[in-house]
Amino acid sequence: MSLPAEFQARLPLIEAALRNAVAEGPEPLVQMARYVLGWEDAAGRPSSGGGKRLRPLLCIEAAVAAGADPSQALSGATAVELVHNFSLVHDDIQDRDALRHGRPTAWRIVGEPQAINLGNFLYTRGLRQLAESRLPGAPLALAMLFEAVERMVAGQWADIAFEDSDDVSEQEYLAMVAGKTGALLGAAAGIGAALAGASRETVDLFRRWGERLGLAFQVQDDYLGTWGDVAATGKSTSGDIARRKKTLPVVFALAAKPAGDALRELYRGAPQSDDDTASVLRLLEETGAREHTRDVARRLSAEADALLAQISLAPNARERLRAFARFVTERDR
Amino acid sequence: MSLPAEFQARLPLIEAALRNAVAEGPEPLVQMARYVLGWEDAAGRPSSGGGKRLRPLLCIEAAVAAGADPSQALSGATAVELVHNFSLVHDDIQDRDALRHGRPTAWRIVGEPQAINLGNFLYTRGLRQLAESRLPGAPLALAMLFEAVERMVAGQWADIAFEDSDDVSEQEYLAMVAGKTGALLGAAAGIGAALAGASRETVDLFRRWGERLGLAFQVQDDYLGTWGDVAATGKSTSGDIARRKKTLPVVFALAAKPAGDALRELYRGAPQSDDDTASVLRLLEETGAREHTRDVARRLSAEADALLAQISLAPNARERLRAFARFVTERDR
Repeated sequence: MSLPAEFQARLPLIEAALRNAVAEGPEPLVQMARYVLGWEDAAGRPSSGGGKRLRPLLCIEAAVAAGADPSQALSGATAVELVHNFSLVHDDIQDRDALRHGRPTAWRIVGEPQAINLGNFLYTRGLRQLAESRLPGAPLALAMLFEAVERMVAGQWADIAFEDSDDVSEQEYLAMVAGKTGALLGAAAGIGAALAGASRETVDLFRRWGERLGLAFQVQDDYLGTWGDVAATGKSTSGDIARRKKTLPVVFALAAKPAGDALRELYRGAPQSDDDTASVLRLLEETGAREHTRDVARRLSAEADALLAQISLAPNARERLRAFARFVTERDR
Repeated sequence: MSLPAEFQARLPLIEAALRNAVAEGPEPLVQMARYVLGWEDAAGRPSSGGGKRLRPLLCIEAAVAAGADPSQALSGATAVELVHNFSLVHDDIQDRDALRHGRPTAWRIVGEPQAINLGNFLYTRGLRQLAESRLPGAPLALAMLFEAVERMVAGQWADIAFEDSDDVSEQEYLAMVAGKTGALLGAAAGIGAALAGASRETVDLFRRWGERLGLAFQVQDDYLGTWGDVAATGKSTSGDIARRKKTLPVVFALAAKPAGDALRELYRGAPQSDDDTASVLRLLEETGAREHTRDVARRLSAEADALLAQISLAPNARERLRAFARFVTERDR
């Protein structure tokens, strides 16, 4: 399922605002920003390959649903996308990931020390978009963004800490994801509503809706990282297993008896062979982790829907947000 | 020269505000914040060993000179100190420094990935201090802080890039230091004036004064890192040489003939022996780099003084700022 045309139509506005946000600044940093955002290759030649722009789209759709013109939410949309890219640049260093959207990660091009600088630049530039906005809702939007980044950083801390733990509960896992992924998607929706001038109560409902959506998104990502089709996702299927990520299916299976003990054994020691990966996949099936992961994603989507139902919206606005939510949570790549 | 008593008297106020700023938050992050800020050892036991708090002191002194009560500048003082500590935590990863203020650096305790998170947390928490202030000068103060961080990041980028270059001019070096060190000290002074409600013009003079002070401070640091007394600084004398840092004396000597060519040769290849370090020191003396470094520090201090003279101040306020500047630029540790 690729991005429906009605949302695709927003992308030129978003891209123009992002380009404007990094048009000026210290040259090596803005050059690498253009690479990370997908407009240039590592040699500075025009190229394509950035992300899906889910967060700025969510920000704009929330603002439009709350009665604003899309342009009114652009400072928030660029802010959340730049903050998202900051987190990706730092995450790729932390996780030693070599590829992102099928392209070499930033640290592989400029080295880890400079990639730390690049992330810090993207973060700062992102925050400035909101800090410099004169809209009445901008201070609330900025406060939400700060709160989201703190939760994101704490979530990333927990995610790294989980690598050394055999014993992560599903509750701990979902709390980690709520920070690492949910907080920024929640902020994207809340910021859109805030910039549209919505009430605090409505802003908070949008934020909570976006956060649930983010959780459902991540659980779907866990599913795709384990059982997804490599051609569709650009990730090697079971890449998450080869890297021993503590995804939801793994966390679930580790708690099962006796399959969990066998899995725990496999997750120890040296990097795994393809045979090991096949054994892990077999154990996951045995415990019902596949169906469970689907169930959790569905439950989180339903919770998001229930929050959306609490927001007072025109019928067509609600239908549009539901369509966006379906795209986010039911994507196959 | 230790911190004069008149400035020392401000420290309890600053420490209390800093403790308050990180009193709450995700536990592993606030625990490491307490370590980095010098209040606890790595096991969480009460300890001492943080930095000199130059930036918050500068912020408060600027505010007081501009007619405010010290407490009015506290949000700015905590913001600049937290941002400074963010930059130290990331710099220590980038430079692979093992010790800071005689204690293990953060990445050596929690690993590089978590130290990246810790820096991001300190940065965010620092910005929030100003973003949540309701003082009329707070938006200008926050804008100055963002601008300073972008320049600091660009300066750090240049500093790392210089490591691979044989050919850095003194002008390029000073531009790098203006970003890496000068920008945040400039912001500290400007933010103090902004929070005190000073005019834009006065705020800008304070900012430029602080930036020159920061440059003089760094050049003095280069001097001490090469010829300073290890007992006073806690750094091994010539540690900068052992690590092949492109400090001002080195940049100056590299441009001299024929000593520069010999120095260039020594700075290539594998890590240096004590003999190599002695040879470098001899070459630096030969080119007059020691006296030149002193001269540049003096010139920068004089430029700072000239900027201070342009600010309309009560005589005792001016004298106090000059005393602070002397402490910053003439310190022996």
